[in-house]
Amino acid sequence: MAERMEGWTLEELAAALGGQLNGPPEKRVLRPVPAGEPDPEGITFSTGPAYDEKIRGSGVGVALVSPGTELDCPTLEVPHPRLSFGWVLQASVRALPLSSGIHPSAVVSLDADIDPTAQIGPFAVIERGARIGPRARVYPFAYVGEDCVLGEGVVLYPHVVLYQAVRLGAGVIVHAGTVLGADGFGYFWDGRQQQKIPQVGGVIVGERSEIGANACIDRATCGATRIASGVKIDNLVQIGHNGQIGAHTVIAGQTGLSGSVTLGEQVVVGGQCAFKDHVSVVDGAILAGRTGVFSDIETAEAYYGLPAIPVKAALRQLALIKRLPEIEKRLRALEQSLESQKKT
Amino acid sequence: MAERMEGWTLEELAAALGGQLNGPPEKRVLRPVPAGEPDPEGITFSTGPAYDEKIRGSGVGVALVSPGTELDCPTLEVPHPRLSFGWVLQASVRALPLSSGIHPSAVVSLDADIDPTAQIGPFAVIERGARIGPRARVYPFAYVGEDCVLGEGVVLYPHVVLYQAVRLGAGVIVHAGTVLGADGFGYFWDGRQQQKIPQVGGVIVGERSEIGANACIDRATCGATRIASGVKIDNLVQIGHNGQIGAHTVIAGQTGLSGSVTLGEQVVVGGQCAFKDHVSVVDGAILAGRTGVFSDIETAEAYYGLPAIPVKAALRQLALIKRLPEIEKRLRALEQSLESQKKT
Amino acid sequence: MAERMEGWTLEELAAALGGQLNGPPEKRVLRPVPAGEPDPEGITFSTGPAYDEKIRGSGVGVALVSPGTELDCPTLEVPHPRLSFGWVLQASVRALPLSSGIHPSAVVSLDADIDPTAQIGPFAVIERGARIGPRARVYPFAYVGEDCVLGEGVVLYPHVVLYQAVRLGAGVIVHAGTVLGADGFGYFWDGRQQQKIPQVGGVIVGERSEIGANACIDRATCGATRIASGVKIDNLVQIGHNGQIGAHTVIAGQTGLSGSVTLGEQVVVGGQCAFKDHVSVVDGAILAGRTGVFSDIETAEAYYGLPAIPVKAALRQLALIKRLPEIEKRLRALEQSLESQKKT
Repeated sequence: MAERMEGWTLEELAAALGGQLNGPPEKRVLRPVPAGEPDPEGITFSTGPAYDEKIRGSGVGVALVSPGTELDCPTLEVPHPRLSFGWVLQASVRALPLSSGIHPSAVVSLDADIDPTAQIGPFAVIERGARIGPRARVYPFAYVGEDCVLGEGVVLYPHVVLYQAVRLGAGVIVHAGTVLGADGFGYFWDGRQQQKIPQVGGVIVGERSEIGANACIDRATCGATRIASGVKIDNLVQIGHNGQIGAHTVIAGQTGLSGSVTLGEQVVVGGQCAFKDHVSVVDGAILAGRTGVFSDIETAEAYYGLPAIPVKAALRQLALIKRLPEIEKRLRALEQSLESQKKT
Repeated sequence: MAERMEGWTLEELAAALGGQLNGPPEKRVLRPVPAGEPDPEGITFSTGPAYDEKIRGSGVGVALVSPGTELDCPTLEVPHPRLSFGWVLQASVRALPLSSGIHPSAVVSLDADIDPTAQIGPFAVIERGARIGPRARVYPFAYVGEDCVLGEGVVLYPHVVLYQAVRLGAGVIVHAGTVLGADGFGYFWDGRQQQKIPQVGGVIVGERSEIGANACIDRATCGATRIASGVKIDNLVQIGHNGQIGAHTVIAGQTGLSGSVTLGEQVVVGGQCAFKDHVSVVDGAILAGRTGVFSDIETAEAYYGLPAIPVKAALRQLALIKRLPEIEKRLRALEQSLESQKKT
Repeated sequence: MAERMEGWTLEELAAALGGQLNGPPEKRVLRPVPAGEPDPEGITFSTGPAYDEKIRGSGVGVALVSPGTELDCPTLEVPHPRLSFGWVLQASVRALPLSSGIHPSAVVSLDADIDPTAQIGPFAVIERGARIGPRARVYPFAYVGEDCVLGEGVVLYPHVVLYQAVRLGAGVIVHAGTVLGADGFGYFWDGRQQQKIPQVGGVIVGERSEIGANACIDRATCGATRIASGVKIDNLVQIGHNGQIGAHTVIAGQTGLSGSVTLGEQVVVGGQCAFKDHVSVVDGAILAGRTGVFSDIETAEAYYGLPAIPVKAALRQLALIKRLPEIEKRLRALEQSLESQKKT
């Protein structure tokens, strides 16, 4: 995958990771791969027999293993194979290409304020009043609307859209196709048709938060939709107008929050969850995938189901639903037994 | 949020809204904010004690209140605070910036017909046969495909894609990243592979309908996928090929309609609902969030569940599911009681 | 819908389809339409009474019918009306317009390798190391990232994004707004914040696969997320990092796969399904819409529910849940009957 990487000789890798090499020191490996990938230039790792089994016979270039592990490929014995593999992953990251400065094709308002160290790619549009911080990277086709603010080191991948008055803290990453600041979904029926409630608020995202691809975070009706710091939001997630997401909360793919939902800090939300408007969830709660939250969640437990209940109760419910045929049968048996009693 | 707004002095606001001012007439306020927002330049409103409580101590610039309400900030007493606040919201709307005429970077076919009052932004692409009506606004990166028609005042936000033969009535708004007219999902298995069923129809959207961000409305296999007038569709909604949506129907986020679904007029559909192909829903029906519609809905009630049943029945079901542990216990008690009877 | 089509006279159509014409030979028809569409230039078809009923009175231009069918419009009698209609659909396909060669506005790296027969539209961005095969069509605003490979005849509709090291086999079609290769959703809690797990793998898509609009297929953490040949993926689908999708598998709209899910060959997945990370599904399994897969599926049956169980069992469960009010009533009757026994 990583054709441009020069990789490492096994000797270099052993030096970098501080391990004991069993294999040819001058052999070159290029990229991290999952256990079992038949890649003679690949680097993989094992934390136990399940991994070992996949690796055996795969012909991988080298495996990072715990001391004493025997495999049929070159190995590098390290105290913490998973951590060392993390180092290899990190060393293999290549930012998508982007020239320094402002690409000549970009359309940048004279009233925008762009740090000289920021990089603005081809066909980006930066509207008046926008402020782009140091080392920010704005990839092609990004639309940075009026009065938007990008903190230091913000990354906007291709096709990101910030409507107006969207503020991203330092280190925020927004993936391709994501839309921040579209109008919230607010109408009222005037007796003849749906009338639009004007949406004039903004979106504020705290430092080091990351938002996946093709997600939608709507602007507030007024005030701001607020994503705190360190929040991680997956692809295709919808956050309605005036949502408030606490620090370090994690939201998995395709989850949807209606308007004015409040999630506390360090909440963990599985995929495809749904939140009714105006509900709030306490710090530290865990929502399993597909959970539907229709009322406030006030204790920091794990929840599941529709509507959400504590996981243990939900599993008991599921088990009983599974046993419904048996329950109905037992009921019928009782009825017959009683019936025959009466007859006698 | 709205840095460019000059706002109002409290005196100006009182004059505009026709109310009784309790506060310094020359004080300037800039923007509408939700109750509780600590914004000394903010305008908020109260319709009762719950709002009052949030406002107290927040230091907001001014609150629009019913006559006789006492708060610890400047107030403007008006007969209908919510309506007056709506006026402030409306007065705070700023269209995203767009120059008049056709931006020099746009690629416009010589065979397209563009009204001189329409505005076409940077990097828009307008294909042959397209017709753009008066006062239409086409934001950057919009793709208006072959033979597409935009009525008067249509707004296409950045990155909207209209494939081919998509017709939008006057006043239609389409938010960023939405795709109208992609191929419907139609294949048949030929014994060796899935064969594509050609998709050659169009999409027709009636006047004043609004479609959220990153939604998908597929073109018809043939004929047209039809969205009537005044329809409101939220973010990330999917409308399959040949769908027919009646006037003033509202569809909340992440809902999905398979092919050939028919929704009547003034239907209300919650978030994350699902519709089986070819089902139809009567005018005025209400589907709560997450409802799954697997067969026609023929009476205009509120529905919930998977499959959809009337809300009352669905709530009774949910209550009984919750009571399953108790029900199973009672059943066991009966069994034991009968067992002991037999023994005696 | 298809204004540019010259269409056919009924005589030409009869000659092309080999049928018996009942109607004026020189009459011109322009486009396929669904039964019932009141289009005097339309071509429709009937396979039986339900279609006939819709067609009668509609005034359609011509109907393709089985021999002996009588309608109130011109008819063309053919042995297999549906197949003949398929021919009409196919003949009505018009590719979205695209000039030959590379549009002067496109930004193409000097280190990209583009076949001279490929077509690159306005505002496309092709990064270094990319290879674009013969007859590939890259529509406006597509982003073909570093080291991406497009096989022969690949079609990227407007706004498609390929991050890096994404390889598409011959004949692959990717619809508008879809993002291939965004970072997988991987973090670990370091005691103070979520730390990003670097995502450095790629995406590989096999020949003739088609991916709908606004979908997301994440790059692998390392190695590759793999979509095999002939796979059909609908709009707004999410495939997590390191997913493996077998040949000819079909995935309907808004379905979400967490990381490292494996689907076999010819699996059929309905809309809005959910897959827990690391589960695998056997070849030929069928998942009804909204099914949640939390553990491996090992036999090729049809499944439904949350969690997934064989459809028959799921329907039995649903039926019993519906009967819960009755079951509870019967239980109460038994309790009372036993109670009264005791009293006597």
